[in-house]
Amino acid sequence: MTVLDQGLTPPAPDLIPDPAVLDLSAARRDVDATLAGFLDAKEQSAPGPELPPLIALLRRFLDGGKRLRPVLCVCGWHAAGGDGDPAAVTDAAAGLELFQAFALIHDDVMDASDTRRGQPSAHRALATAYTANGGQSDRAEEHGLGAAVLLGDLALVWSDELLHRAGLNVGRLEQVLPLLDEMRSEVVYGQYLDLQTTGRLSDDVDTALRVARYKTAKYTVERPLHIGAALAGASPGILAACSEFALPLGEAFQLRDDLLGVFGDPRQTGKPVLDDLRSGKATVLMALAVQRASRGELRKLRAVFGSPDVDEQDATAVRKILDRTGARQTVDEMIRTRREQAMAALDHVPFPAAAVTALRTIAESATARQA
Amino acid sequence: MTVLDQGLTPPAPDLIPDPAVLDLSAARRDVDATLAGFLDAKEQSAPGPELPPLIALLRRFLDGGKRLRPVLCVCGWHAAGGDGDPAAVTDAAAGLELFQAFALIHDDVMDASDTRRGQPSAHRALATAYTANGGQSDRAEEHGLGAAVLLGDLALVWSDELLHRAGLNVGRLEQVLPLLDEMRSEVVYGQYLDLQTTGRLSDDVDTALRVARYKTAKYTVERPLHIGAALAGASPGILAACSEFALPLGEAFQLRDDLLGVFGDPRQTGKPVLDDLRSGKATVLMALAVQRASRGELRKLRAVFGSPDVDEQDATAVRKILDRTGARQTVDEMIRTRREQAMAALDHVPFPAAAVTALRTIAESATARQA
Repeated sequence: MTVLDQGLTPPAPDLIPDPAVLDLSAARRDVDATLAGFLDAKEQSAPGPELPPLIALLRRFLDGGKRLRPVLCVCGWHAAGGDGDPAAVTDAAAGLELFQAFALIHDDVMDASDTRRGQPSAHRALATAYTANGGQSDRAEEHGLGAAVLLGDLALVWSDELLHRAGLNVGRLEQVLPLLDEMRSEVVYGQYLDLQTTGRLSDDVDTALRVARYKTAKYTVERPLHIGAALAGASPGILAACSEFALPLGEAFQLRDDLLGVFGDPRQTGKPVLDDLRSGKATVLMALAVQRASRGELRKLRAVFGSPDVDEQDATAVRKILDRTGARQTVDEMIRTRREQAMAALDHVPFPAAAVTALRTIAESATARQA
Repeated sequence: MTVLDQGLTPPAPDLIPDPAVLDLSAARRDVDATLAGFLDAKEQSAPGPELPPLIALLRRFLDGGKRLRPVLCVCGWHAAGGDGDPAAVTDAAAGLELFQAFALIHDDVMDASDTRRGQPSAHRALATAYTANGGQSDRAEEHGLGAAVLLGDLALVWSDELLHRAGLNVGRLEQVLPLLDEMRSEVVYGQYLDLQTTGRLSDDVDTALRVARYKTAKYTVERPLHIGAALAGASPGILAACSEFALPLGEAFQLRDDLLGVFGDPRQTGKPVLDDLRSGKATVLMALAVQRASRGELRKLRAVFGSPDVDEQDATAVRKILDRTGARQTVDEMIRTRREQAMAALDHVPFPAAAVTALRTIAESATARQA
C-alpha cells in the first residue's frame, strides 16, 4: 500500500451545516472515540504487563489514519437508509480502521519499510523498544519483525471483534459476515498479487488493473460501503448500486495513487517520490509505458525499475518516458472515465440525497487529490 | 510452537468398536474431507492464476497435522450432548486446523525456522518457488517471507470463514463468536509472551506458566472444547466443566513438551533436541533450574542458553543440571498433579459417558507421550 492510506482531504467545513449533508466529521470523531474506548478496555483487561506497551504502539499507529474506510462504511449505512443510533455502524467503521492497521503493519514487514505516516514503522519501533528494555541488540531486528507480525495479527482479530459486535447489536451478523469474509480474502489476494508482480517490468495492463481492483477498489471502497449498508439491512439492489459506484471510483483512486507515486510532490504525499520505482511497483502506468516504449526507452526502464540505486536523474528520465509514450495521459483519461462512471452511477442510485451528496464529495476529492 | 503440533497418538484401534466410545478416527476423516472440499472450492473460484499454487502449498502444510484441536472440538460437541448431523462441528473443527496452520506459518516466519513437519517451512518453500518461476534470487528470501505472512493471513481469514459457516448453520453464532474472539486474542498474546521471554534466562516460574497457559492450555485444549460445546448449545455449566478439565491438562501438555524439548528422542519428536536451548525458550523447567543452580551451574546455563553454537556436549551438561537441581523431577510432578486434576474433573463433569471416555484417552496420551 502506498500514499493511499494518507486518505482523503476532509470536506470543507462550510459543507457541513446543511442538514441534508451527512456530518462526516462527527462520524470520524465517533470512530476515534470507539477505537479509544475499545483499546482502553483491552488495556484494562490485559492478562499481563506485556500487552499495554503493544496497545500503546497500536494507538499511535491508528492516530495517523485519515479514516477513509470508516467514512465510507458510514456512508454505506446512510445509503441503505440507516438512521437512529449509529453505534453499530460506528463499531464496524472502527473495526475497518483496525483492519487497515493490520494490513499496513504486515505490509511494512513485507516491504521492510522503515517509516509509515512519518513515524518509524511498527517493526522498527518494536526493535527499538526491545533493546531499550534490555534485549540483546543482535536479536533486535528479528524480534521487531516477529512482534510486528503479532501486532498485525492482533489488530486483525480485534477488528473482527468490533465487526462482530456491530453485527450482533443490530441482529444482522448473517448479512455482515459473508461480506467481511469476502473482503478479507480479497485484500490478502490483492496484496499477494502486488507482491508477485512487484519487481517485474511488464506490459500487462490487465494484471495491473486486477491488482488495483483487489488491493484497492474492492477493499477500500466497495466493501466498506457494503458492510455499512448490510448493517442497515440493505437489499441486494442497494448492494449492487454501491458496487456500481465503488468499483470505478476505487480503480480511479488507485490509478491516481500510481500517478502520485511518480509525479507527486513528496511534501504533499508524505512519501518519497522514488519509492514506487525503487521497489518496482507494476502499475498500469508502467505497463502502458512498456507497451509503447522505444528500444532505448525500454532499456532505460529496465535499468531503473526495481533498482535500489534509482536517483532523481533516473526518475526524471522515467517521467519523460511516461510523458513521451502518452502513458501518463492515458492514465489521466482512465481516471476521468472512471470518475464519470462513478458519478453517473450516483445519478440513479436509490440512496437518500444526503448519502449521494457525501459520496459525490468523496469521489471528487479522491480522484483530484494531490496527496 | 514446538513438538506440540505433532499432536497425539491416535487411540488404539481396539478402543473404537464400542458404541459408547466416540469414533475419533471418523471425525478426523470428516475434518480432512471438509478441508479438502473447502480448498477445492477456493481453488475453483480463485480470481486469478496466482492463488492455486498458494492453495496447493497450504494443502501440503495441512497434510502434516495430527488434528488435535479438531478432535477436541468434536469432543466438546459431544460433551455438550451434540448429536445428529455433525456437519457444523466438522466445519468448526476444520476451521481450527486452518487457524493452527496460520499460527505455525507465522511462528516459523518469526523464528526463521527452515523446516516444519519434516518439510521446508512455508517461507522457505515460497522463496524457492519464487526463483523457480524466474524471480531474482537476491529478492527470493524477502519475497518468501512476505508471501508466508500473507499465506498465514489467508489461513486465518479462511479459518474464520469455516467457523462462521459452522455457527450460522446451527444458528449459534452469538455463542461461538465471543469464544472465537477470545481464543484468537489469547493465542496471539501467548505467542507475544513467548517471543518476549525467549532468549532471556530467568528464574520466573510464574511467567513461564503464564506463557504455557495462553500459548497452549487455553488455545490448544480449552477453546476447541468450548467452541465445539457452544455449537451444541452448551450451558455455562458445561463450559465451566470443560475448563476444569482443559486448563490443567493443557498446562501438563506444555510441560511435557518442554521436557521433550530437552530430553526427548529426536527420532520420535521429529524435532532437533537442541532447538529449545538454541533459541532460549523460557520454560518452567529452565526457570526452576535457574532458581536452584549453583554458581558454576548458573554460569554454564548462561553460556549455553540462547546460543546458536549449542552442541551435544553442552546439552548433556544442561541435562545434568536439570537432573541435579531436581528441576526435571519437579516438572514431572507438576505434570502428574495436573493430569490428576484433569482426570478428577472428569469424575464429576455432566458429560455423556462416551465423551468422558474419549477425553480420558486424550488426557492419558497427551501427558505420557514421547513425541
